[in-house]
Amino acid sequence: MQQRGFLLILSGPSGAGKNTVLDAARERLPDLLYSVSATTRPRRPLEEDGRDYFFLAKEEFQRRVKAGEFLEWAEFCNHYYGTPMAYITEALEKGQVVAMDIDIQGARQVKEKMPEAVFVFLLPPTMAELESRLRGRSSDSDTAIRRRLHTALSELKAGIEYDYVIRNDEIDRAADQLVAIITAERCRLRHSEYFELLKDIVGEQGVISKDDEPTAH
Amino acid sequence: MQQRGFLLILSGPSGAGKNTVLDAARERLPDLLYSVSATTRPRRPLEEDGRDYFFLAKEEFQRRVKAGEFLEWAEFCNHYYGTPMAYITEALEKGQVVAMDIDIQGARQVKEKMPEAVFVFLLPPTMAELESRLRGRSSDSDTAIRRRLHTALSELKAGIEYDYVIRNDEIDRAADQLVAIITAERCRLRHSEYFELLKDIVGEQGVISKDDEPTAH
Repeated sequence: MQQRGFLLILSGPSGAGKNTVLDAARERLPDLLYSVSATTRPRRPLEEDGRDYFFLAKEEFQRRVKAGEFLEWAEFCNHYYGTPMAYITEALEKGQVVAMDIDIQGARQVKEKMPEAVFVFLLPPTMAELESRLRGRSSDSDTAIRRRLHTALSELKAGIEYDYVIRNDEIDRAADQLVAIITAERCRLRHSEYFELLKDIVGEQGVISKDDEPTAH
Repeated sequence: MQQRGFLLILSGPSGAGKNTVLDAARERLPDLLYSVSATTRPRRPLEEDGRDYFFLAKEEFQRRVKAGEFLEWAEFCNHYYGTPMAYITEALEKGQVVAMDIDIQGARQVKEKMPEAVFVFLLPPTMAELESRLRGRSSDSDTAIRRRLHTALSELKAGIEYDYVIRNDEIDRAADQLVAIITAERCRLRHSEYFELLKDIVGEQGVISKDDEPTAH
């Protein structure tokens, strides 16, 4: 019997430190898989195909978009970036946990295709400062800060019902919390091996026969 | 601003090791509150009123049952046992996490009164053995074992939609998983301080004025 895999999405406003926190979590959980993106941008010297990115020609990328082969994709600075669906579904079928960090728009696309994924929102380290300023401890003219906070909050509100929120005041603490979320989600009834057992044994007729049913006790 | 407290219920069949696992988790999380039960049974030599139990006279206990002052209660061996509601609601209002271990029938009562609590099912250490036997590696005549497994599973199935399931093969691992669940649940959107912030700031009119709304960017 095998645990059921799940996809963990770490998202949040830019500057939240998604990549740093996820890297720190991966150090603590060596068997955590990291989703490798595909891209059409040129490979940089130290990058490796299949480890850092799957490097694709633009035509091939577009073909795969049309074929629905990406969980999500986007264009930045004239290059395409996307998450190959096959890589993730294969890992999930093996019972593995796959993590990816992604911007809020990308997380929205994932939510549409895989609503059962676990969604974690990472708050930028500056949130506490923004918050206290918003709460009246700064000059009213400081609208830039209010604007940034408003954007972060409205993105969260409008975007996705995130399952968890982590405040990235301290990378180690944030990474510990992410690891705890992954450990807890592995114990979640629907992800646990026990869920399958329950379905196998109790949910199906005949596996436990009437003769085996307990008498009054 | 303050985190929102929550009640964590550790339940499971008798013999699962609920109390042992919860004690080990409390050693790891010293600020985890443990719900103190009320009882009508006589105090034993080393027990302390208010620490081990709230010791009550039978009439007083019954009065409180009628007044709806217990989250759950039951009678065992001619004595009453119950969980005082006030103790828990006060702690939750302070943003604290309260844990309690309780049998499956008690957990059902809690689920009715506090469906928002976090429910964890603990599987007995013998589950793996039971499981393999059930799966045909034992003689068919061994109905006692099948009966025990059937009871455990049907209790789980019929009882409660548990949120998590932990297999108590090893106390330390089970306790670590319970601690991870508590840490993760503290990060859950609805338990996090951020949830209140979001409601305060975005949900209410006027706190962020139209002037502060971001322009196209």
